[in-house]
Amino acid sequence: MIDPEVLQRLGRTLAERKGASADSSYVASLYAKGTDAICKKVAEEAAETIMAAKDGDLRHIVHEVTDLWFHSMVLLSQFGLSVDDVLVEFRRREGISGIDEKASRGAQ
Amino acid sequence: MIDPEVLQRLGRTLAERKGASADSSYVASLYAKGTDAICKKVAEEAAETIMAAKDGDLRHIVHEVTDLWFHSMVLLSQFGLSVDDVLVEFRRREGISGIDEKASRGAQ
Amino acid sequence: MIDPEVLQRLGRTLAERKGASADSSYVASLYAKGTDAICKKVAEEAAETIMAAKDGDLRHIVHEVTDLWFHSMVLLSQFGLSVDDVLVEFRRREGISGIDEKASRGAQ
Amino acid sequence: MIDPEVLQRLGRTLAERKGASADSSYVASLYAKGTDAICKKVAEEAAETIMAAKDGDLRHIVHEVTDLWFHSMVLLSQFGLSVDDVLVEFRRREGISGIDEKASRGAQ
Repeated sequence: MIDPEVLQRLGRTLAERKGASADSSYVASLYAKGTDAICKKVAEEAAETIMAAKDGDLRHIVHEVTDLWFHSMVLLSQFGLSVDDVLVEFRRREGISGIDEKASRGAQ
Repeated sequence: MIDPEVLQRLGRTLAERKGASADSSYVASLYAKGTDAICKKVAEEAAETIMAAKDGDLRHIVHEVTDLWFHSMVLLSQFGLSVDDVLVEFRRREGISGIDEKASRGAQ
Repeated sequence: MIDPEVLQRLGRTLAERKGASADSSYVASLYAKGTDAICKKVAEEAAETIMAAKDGDLRHIVHEVTDLWFHSMVLLSQFGLSVDDVLVEFRRREGISGIDEKASRGAQ
Repeated sequence: MIDPEVLQRLGRTLAERKGASADSSYVASLYAKGTDAICKKVAEEAAETIMAAKDGDLRHIVHEVTDLWFHSMVLLSQFGLSVDDVLVEFRRREGISGIDEKASRGAQ
């Protein structure tokens, strides 16, 4: 089984980048551009995920979902949040009844 | 630290739901409606994530990113993929040089 | 040539609906739900436009672009704006040099 | 009242650009990049429209809706369609009963 802690290691890296100068990395430049620029990337990656799905291109779907999650994590980090907050929310939904029913209710 | 395996448990649950009848759960109904319906949910949750970020509402941001990731996982499952494929891709990017540089290159 | 004033007639109808009770029409219910609900429809219709384009389904593309423009006009109306404001902006871009160059610069 | 034919003039310009070399204009470069690149712009402009609405910035809303409609028209043109096809669809919905009820039904 794949080690799921990769997300948490990335989360820590993203948090560390917050103090860095805008030209030191891609992520630092995104933070410097601000929330709208990060949101725009989330929207773009969601659109690319949809287009990969319409193409039925499996490799591309995985690539785009990774990009979408990556930029979601930059957004979380921008607000002082982390992937742990999302994992806690997944756990909360899991804990109550059926996980998909919970998620469903959450999504409405 | 939060147990990150919650994503993998959810992934297994989503995979098991694929054989179920459309009215047995929210996820089963999404599978039955097909790829376009799942993609539409991904787009919706991305939009709600953006709106929560614009409101600066931390609880809402976590809630919407969770919804976005949840529906991304339903999409992966629709194509016989899983969260492990995404974690492998995160690992691959992590393994090469700086994780954010890789992610950046991936995202262009 | 098709009479382009249909957009302006629709704009007037949308403006008139603003005072109506939420259950009197679809548009009145959208106004009552507020800006987030209208924005969510704009995002949804953009996603459906993209999916129709990926299918190469011409009839569906026209249908979804119409839905997208319709909900854009509800959003304009929510803010006391109208399609005339958009037409003025198109005219402004047209008036300067090459319309696509202007639009390009605007879009960056 | 603003002359609504600006959309049709733009539609003709967009159609004429289709034969041009990719480096001759912004629109020609979009056609050359293909449907996915145009769809990505539609998604981006929809996201920017939503962010402008969340900011309540009237000038920005008009600017972004114009960008959204502009790129929708490039998409129509990519498929040999035009703004007239959208205006015809608006007329069809107008002709039947109440325009917002029709649009509503179309949007479901």
